[in-house]
Amino acid sequence: MRRIDLVPGTEYKIIQDKGLFSYGIDAILLSHFSKAKGVVVDLGTGTGIIPLRIVDSKGVSQVYGVEIQKDVAKMAEKTVELNSLQDRIRIINTDLKELPEMMGKASVDTVITNPPYMKPGGAIVSREDNFAISRHEIAATLEDIAAVSHYILKPLGKLYMVHRPNRLVDVLCTLRSHGLEPKYMQWVHPKPGKQPNLFLLEAVKGGRSDFKYREPIVVYDENGNYNEEIFEIYGMSR
Amino acid sequence: MRRIDLVPGTEYKIIQDKGLFSYGIDAILLSHFSKAKGVVVDLGTGTGIIPLRIVDSKGVSQVYGVEIQKDVAKMAEKTVELNSLQDRIRIINTDLKELPEMMGKASVDTVITNPPYMKPGGAIVSREDNFAISRHEIAATLEDIAAVSHYILKPLGKLYMVHRPNRLVDVLCTLRSHGLEPKYMQWVHPKPGKQPNLFLLEAVKGGRSDFKYREPIVVYDENGNYNEEIFEIYGMSR
Repeated sequence: MRRIDLVPGTEYKIIQDKGLFSYGIDAILLSHFSKAKGVVVDLGTGTGIIPLRIVDSKGVSQVYGVEIQKDVAKMAEKTVELNSLQDRIRIINTDLKELPEMMGKASVDTVITNPPYMKPGGAIVSREDNFAISRHEIAATLEDIAAVSHYILKPLGKLYMVHRPNRLVDVLCTLRSHGLEPKYMQWVHPKPGKQPNLFLLEAVKGGRSDFKYREPIVVYDENGNYNEEIFEIYGMSR
Repeated sequence: MRRIDLVPGTEYKIIQDKGLFSYGIDAILLSHFSKAKGVVVDLGTGTGIIPLRIVDSKGVSQVYGVEIQKDVAKMAEKTVELNSLQDRIRIINTDLKELPEMMGKASVDTVITNPPYMKPGGAIVSREDNFAISRHEIAATLEDIAAVSHYILKPLGKLYMVHRPNRLVDVLCTLRSHGLEPKYMQWVHPKPGKQPNLFLLEAVKGGRSDFKYREPIVVYDENGNYNEEIFEIYGMSR
């Protein structure tokens, strides 16, 4: 079931497929949180939502969306063509572990990633299952993402990531151990007074240890409606 | 200026000295958060508040309070004598780095610590300054605490710690890298809607990666009064 939607906060169109891949609020929050500049790589780009959201940001020169799933990458490429953005967004259908060879060392200013949240193992999943690859660390682990990001990022280049609170220790320690120092964190709460269900993180290649928090985001108000802030983040301020 | 107070939630007396050392809410929250059992070591015991709070907990057999500052340790020892607890609480006036030799490997069930929050460097501090030693990592760093705790703890023994949110990455990664896996975290907010200013953490020696959160603690209500939960934690339920 393919359909064409408008990318929130832009004039661009995006192809989505409920059976294959459609973006979530995580990608919207992440693209808003990120201060992308220069050459940007989005690891696991899916529909291409993040490249489309940031391509017109000040200082962004070129965006690469990396996607291992062939059919998903094709769909994202169609979206890029649909918006005539081929000169500024390139979808690369590859395993991200190939990037160090493809892009070279210290060639990138910003890495953005909305990675699979779940560890491999546990549930039995198929390597061919699109949903599984997007949700479980089958094709790429946190270690892979950290190692590749450190390699392709320039010194003091930035990594932006969204992840789940139950993976906090894994995320912080894996990044630090790969020379990507966590610097800013922002918790995302589904409702006021509820535990956070996501966090946004900025890490800096070779940054010094100095960890700070941004004011948390609360998605819904007491009545289950989006808070005003969410409309602002979506770029659809009323 | 010495004075004798009652240890909240107990019948015990405690000697405090405003010029030397008096306990804070951090120690009260930490002693309540900890599920101490068996042989317990409190690293940096100060006045001895934590040993006094937990000595009567079910399953606790012996408590050691380790304190590097001679005059502070003496004061804590006087407190122990005042309460006739010499057979169950022992104050050890030593550098915690001496503990592996003194206590032996895998001899302890629970480690509790309310460590200095600030990194060394930055402010100029004197090694003889009591306040400085309690607040800055002069006498003991996080690395020291993690290494010593891992050595003296039995397999699956637990470490309980209170620390500041700006040291989150340091705490989680230092513990993990020393084989102490962070398992539970509880944020402490000064007021509703305010950023947390403390966190409580349980780590397990040789535990597997599985990170969870307890409902956050909010200390004051909107009017600046303690929340009911804080009275309960202090053991002074109204």
